[in-house]
Amino acid sequence: MNEPLFVIPLWADLTAVGLGGVQGALFASGFQGQRRLDLLGVAIIGIVMGMGGGLIRDLLLNVLPATLQNNWYLLTATLAALAGMLLANLFRRLNAVIVGLDAIVIGLFGAFGTSKALTLGLPFVPAVFVGVCSAVGGGILRDMLMGLPTAIMHVGSLYAVAAGAGCVVVATAHALGAPLVAAAIAGLVVTAVIRLLAVIFDVSLPEQRMLYRRKVAVETSAIPIVRPGDDSES
Amino acid sequence: MNEPLFVIPLWADLTAVGLGGVQGALFASGFQGQRRLDLLGVAIIGIVMGMGGGLIRDLLLNVLPATLQNNWYLLTATLAALAGMLLANLFRRLNAVIVGLDAIVIGLFGAFGTSKALTLGLPFVPAVFVGVCSAVGGGILRDMLMGLPTAIMHVGSLYAVAAGAGCVVVATAHALGAPLVAAAIAGLVVTAVIRLLAVIFDVSLPEQRMLYRRKVAVETSAIPIVRPGDDSES
Amino acid sequence: MNEPLFVIPLWADLTAVGLGGVQGALFASGFQGQRRLDLLGVAIIGIVMGMGGGLIRDLLLNVLPATLQNNWYLLTATLAALAGMLLANLFRRLNAVIVGLDAIVIGLFGAFGTSKALTLGLPFVPAVFVGVCSAVGGGILRDMLMGLPTAIMHVGSLYAVAAGAGCVVVATAHALGAPLVAAAIAGLVVTAVIRLLAVIFDVSLPEQRMLYRRKVAVETSAIPIVRPGDDSES
Repeated sequence: MNEPLFVIPLWADLTAVGLGGVQGALFASGFQGQRRLDLLGVAIIGIVMGMGGGLIRDLLLNVLPATLQNNWYLLTATLAALAGMLLANLFRRLNAVIVGLDAIVIGLFGAFGTSKALTLGLPFVPAVFVGVCSAVGGGILRDMLMGLPTAIMHVGSLYAVAAGAGCVVVATAHALGAPLVAAAIAGLVVTAVIRLLAVIFDVSLPEQRMLYRRKVAVETSAIPIVRPGDDSES
Repeated sequence: MNEPLFVIPLWADLTAVGLGGVQGALFASGFQGQRRLDLLGVAIIGIVMGMGGGLIRDLLLNVLPATLQNNWYLLTATLAALAGMLLANLFRRLNAVIVGLDAIVIGLFGAFGTSKALTLGLPFVPAVFVGVCSAVGGGILRDMLMGLPTAIMHVGSLYAVAAGAGCVVVATAHALGAPLVAAAIAGLVVTAVIRLLAVIFDVSLPEQRMLYRRKVAVETSAIPIVRPGDDSES
Repeated sequence: MNEPLFVIPLWADLTAVGLGGVQGALFASGFQGQRRLDLLGVAIIGIVMGMGGGLIRDLLLNVLPATLQNNWYLLTATLAALAGMLLANLFRRLNAVIVGLDAIVIGLFGAFGTSKALTLGLPFVPAVFVGVCSAVGGGILRDMLMGLPTAIMHVGSLYAVAAGAGCVVVATAHALGAPLVAAAIAGLVVTAVIRLLAVIFDVSLPEQRMLYRRKVAVETSAIPIVRPGDDSES
């Protein structure tokens, strides 16, 4: 280990929290109908997206959450969520802004999560796992709170894959002796680029094979049902 | 800090757990149709509501959960849940009982959460955050387990606001040098009163502005648009 | 306490993780329609089912999760999930395989959870609670991630009861001075047998009384079915 006391710099951590807060508020403000949120609801989603990743990381690592050790994290997340609400009017049709912010946020949380896990002495695979949980955890919490099916679970994501690839880069670079800061930056870039490319080219993982076959079978059998008995009755 | 070793008295903690258990069981027993619960399900919801707040608080504070350090918490929550099930027949139409109990429970958990966080040395804002999570956490866990959209996220709550106001009172009184016990009692009262007033006067937060406008637009356009000028033109 | 340093043997823990992974993937691959999962989704459910119980146990016990202390847990869960996906084609109609695996998995996690809690000095009731959470936690996480109502909450489960009975056996045997290994094996057997018997004989807990009455009323009123075709046949 090159950096026995590597600590994520506060400004970097707060940047991730702030971007997460803005992104969460933009996302939450897009709902209407039964799922529409009041001002507080949008703020809560912003805070969850800004702080969720770090909280989950520190719960898994069994350390007192960094986000609770000073006042700045919560203030940043809250102000960012408020900013996100105001910006929602401006950015309503700029879906690209939400997607772009999201790519950077999962990259940051993934890189920070893996770095912190490695610093605490976790092996390669669990360090990647903690990074991925940290990257996608905020979104999972958000979906659970809103009663939505969690986004990463369904066809068309590549979300967790992007996070995972970045975290693998961080852990591999660290294993090869690279400084953690450089490793983290490389991981962030890899995650954000994969995520953006996936959205731009609409790439998704293949559906599970068997399910596809079954679906076809069901659709076929549902078509023109001719029961044997029908003829004899006429 | 005035109380270097402030500990929530066991009887007070068990009171919160017991009231939470009763309240959870009353709530859960009100469901029918697809969401109806068996006896065990109602008991689980009671236990979750009685113990959830304390568990979430201690997870965030990274200490061994107080609720797991002796046998009384779980026994109290379970017996309270059973009592709640029996009382459900009596109190079925007394919605006021559920709401009143709930106001006291979130007040207790909020005050205990903030107090414990302050005692462990957390700064103002995170201490308030831990209190709010502790107050609303049981309800969120309950809604997640039951597959309901979480109550605090949707229009018409003021739930988290009531919890937050009480926790701010606790932290402020503590910062001003008040003994934690007095601060906690003040916080409990503030939370319960705000929550009850909100229910009585049916106060809710303004919906998010933009969404409101969009909703109005949709409703307007959906009518059968007959513009006043149309007739006179023919 | 007979075993001051009782540790769950790695091979036993990995067996539970692996069986959980297979079981999770078999379960997840059974979904279609809106809830169908892509390859990654099935793998995630497998990992959640394999590792969720241990993670929840260690979060509650406030120790660094065992599953994050070496590479084998995650590799085992992932490989097991992949195996489960391939096996899904073979076992599609063998619902018995899923149920049987599940009975063993909850037995293992329950016994390990209670044993670890007792080893760390927790009293009887909380040790049983940690065991039950450990046994059913993976399934709860799975249902939450998939946006399903959590299985243990609804009529017809006996799921948590089976887990609870096994955990009580472990804690009782330990209190009577039995070695933890023997206690854990007895608990595993009790849980698995109860769970299997419950499925075979289709036993379920009585619905909550009040709710039951209401349900009967609904079904009765729905009965007098007069099918249009009946007349023409006479």
